[in-house]
Formats: sequence, C-alpha cells, structure tokens
Amino acid sequence: MKLYDYLDSGNGYKVRLTLAQLGIACDWEERDILRGATRTPEFLARNPNGRIPALELDDGTCLAESNAIIWYLAEGSPLVPDDRLLRAQVLQWMFFEQYSHEPYVATPRFIVKHLPVDSPRRAELPDRLERGRAALAVMERHLTAHRFFVGERYTLADIALYAYTHVADQGGHDLAPYPQLRAWLDRVASQPGYRPLMARPAARAVR
Amino acid sequence: MKLYDYLDSGNGYKVRLTLAQLGIACDWEERDILRGATRTPEFLARNPNGRIPALELDDGTCLAESNAIIWYLAEGSPLVPDDRLLRAQVLQWMFFEQYSHEPYVATPRFIVKHLPVDSPRRAELPDRLERGRAALAVMERHLTAHRFFVGERYTLADIALYAYTHVADQGGHDLAPYPQLRAWLDRVASQPGYRPLMARPAARAVR
Repeated sequence: MKLYDYLDSGNGYKVRLTLAQLGIACDWEERDILRGATRTPEFLARNPNGRIPALELDDGTCLAESNAIIWYLAEGSPLVPDDRLLRAQVLQWMFFEQYSHEPYVATPRFIVKHLPVDSPRRAELPDRLERGRAALAVMERHLTAHRFFVGERYTLADIALYAYTHVADQGGHDLAPYPQLRAWLDRVASQPGYRPLMARPAARAVR
Repeated sequence: MKLYDYLDSGNGYKVRLTLAQLGIACDWEERDILRGATRTPEFLARNPNGRIPALELDDGTCLAESNAIIWYLAEGSPLVPDDRLLRAQVLQWMFFEQYSHEPYVATPRFIVKHLPVDSPRRAELPDRLERGRAALAVMERHLTAHRFFVGERYTLADIALYAYTHVADQGGHDLAPYPQLRAWLDRVASQPGYRPLMARPAARAVR
C-alpha cells in the first residue's frame, strides 16, 4: 500500500497514527497541497476530489477520505468495536468531526499557518472560531462523563477528533476553558504506538 | 425507536428512506429547527450538538449524525456491502457527502428556502454554489463509469448523496450539465420502497 499525504495535514496524520498503532507498513509519498500537487491530472485519476490523504491499495484501487481510510485499516482491530451500536457511535463522532469540527478547528489553522497575513480568507476566522468553540464545548461536555469518546476505551473516534484538536491553538483556539478535553488529549498521547503529527515517515514505510 | 426529525431536512430524509426501504417501524416526532426546537435543554440532553436527525433507541440511547444512524440501521442488510473494501468505499462517499457536498448543496437550499430574501447569509451563495458544482462534477465523473456509487448496486452511499442532490435546484444549482447524475437520480427513485422527501410519516411509524 502507498499513502499519498501532506505532513502537516491532521487528516493525513489520522492515517499515519492508525497505521503506526496497528503496526501496518505502508509506502509514503508527500504531495505539496500548497503547490497544487493534488490537483494534477495524474493525482485526480487517483482521487477525483483532489485531496490527500489517499491510500492506494496493492491492486491499484485508491481510497479517499481520512475517516473511511482508517475505518478500512482498523476494522477487526480493537480500534473499531464489535458491538453494532458502539460502531455506530464511533461513526457518529467521526461524522461530527468532519461536519461540525474540522471546518472550524482545522481550517482556521490552515488559514493562519499557510496563507499570507493579508489573505482575504482571514475574514472567515471570527465565524469559524465561534463554531469551533461550539464543537469543542460539545466534546468537553461529553468528556465530563467519559474517559474516551465511545465505550470507555480508545477507538477511531479518538484518533479522528485528536488530529486537529491537539493543534487547535495554532488556528487561534484557546483550550484553557476545556480541562476535560485537555486531560483526554494527554490520555490519547499516552497510548501505545503514539507518534506526533510532524514525525516524518520514511518514504518506504510509515511503521 | 423514535426519530426526531424535520420534514424538509435531507439529512432526516436519509433516515426515513432507509427505514422505509428496510421495512423498519419507528415513531416520528418533528422538531421545528427554524424555531430553535433542537436547542432546548431537553433536546440538548438527547443530542448535545443540537441537531436533527437523532434516533432514540428503546433503551434511551440517542444516536446522532444522519450517516451514522443509517449505518446503524442498515448494517447486515444489502444496503451495506459485506466486503471490507466496498464498505470503506460506501463510507468514503458518505464522508464526501458531509464534507464536500452538504455544505455546498444543502446549505444554499436552506438559505434560499428558509431565510429572508435580505438575509446577510445570501452573500455566502456564490462561494457555496461554486464548491457545490465541484462536488456535483466529482459525482458526474464517477457515474460516467458506474450505475451506482459503490459495487454497481444501490447502497447507503446512494441514499446519502441522493438526499440533497435531488433537490439541489431549490438552492440555485442547475443539474442540466450533469446527465449521468440525472440518470442516477432516476435509478434511485425507482428503487423498491422509495418514498419522496416531503412524505410526512405518521407520528406512530415511519414505515
């Protein structure tokens, strides 16, 4: 398998973390999203939506969408519960992450970290940060009664939500008002096989 | 089970359509999202993210996020493939729907249909419609070579993408440039057990 990725991407990091924690080897190729390297005809043939991460399987099939990729990798492992309701709850938090969290936690970080200081997209920040705080408050409320997001143990729901939450400050979010969330970040970072966001994989293997 | 819903919601419609096609009975209660009926303390205790649809199970557990709800309902049925890769591809399109499609196809419809003509949110329409056209083009390209989104048969991926695509014109999208997509809409609407978006369920049962 080969993962097309961008090192600073939290969505890519979800896949790298899952691969590492499951002990799965995978080739790794970085694509510079800031220079359009995911919008070339050659890349669009792999993922017509023009985004990393994309996982190319040995038969050439290419799987897109970070949360679908980690589901593919982790089904049958302890990261995906066997119970039908718990599995749906993992997906619930993963869809929450993509719809109510990522655009308001990850996108501000992208704007602040990668766009020019005078980018017109800075005008989006007040609204995005307000919605981001709403998402962080939903997480804080849940974690007041739970150690992890689903089933009181570490699952893909935690990986999906950790990826951009733990670097939310880089987009202008202040995590001080969320003590339960900060304690959960520490619990995730102490899981076996944890690796940090910016740990560059060898080109030959993520493991 | 009881579904908290809003009749005009495409996200709610995904659940109604799945229930109908699987022949599952379910109580139904409408919440007026335009009057804040999903942001009351009583509703937030069910879904802290304050959104419909939410499915309350017989033990009181409440499941949120439309795509997680239909996954819960349909696992083990023909709407979710048995094969691991096909299952991940269904999820790929469902995450595509929530991240790259819904905000740019459903939200314009909400702005046009439910907000005042002088709402400041109308200023969002040009950008949202442009991104929506990109999502529709990705679908059109895929459907040029496929009858359905995954495995050449009707799955949850089709239900998730159909819900807002078939009413995209109500938000200002023109589907004329997407002939493969329009043919696919017809194929979905001819599936056994199909029901239209605005078919109001009896309060006692969706079936």
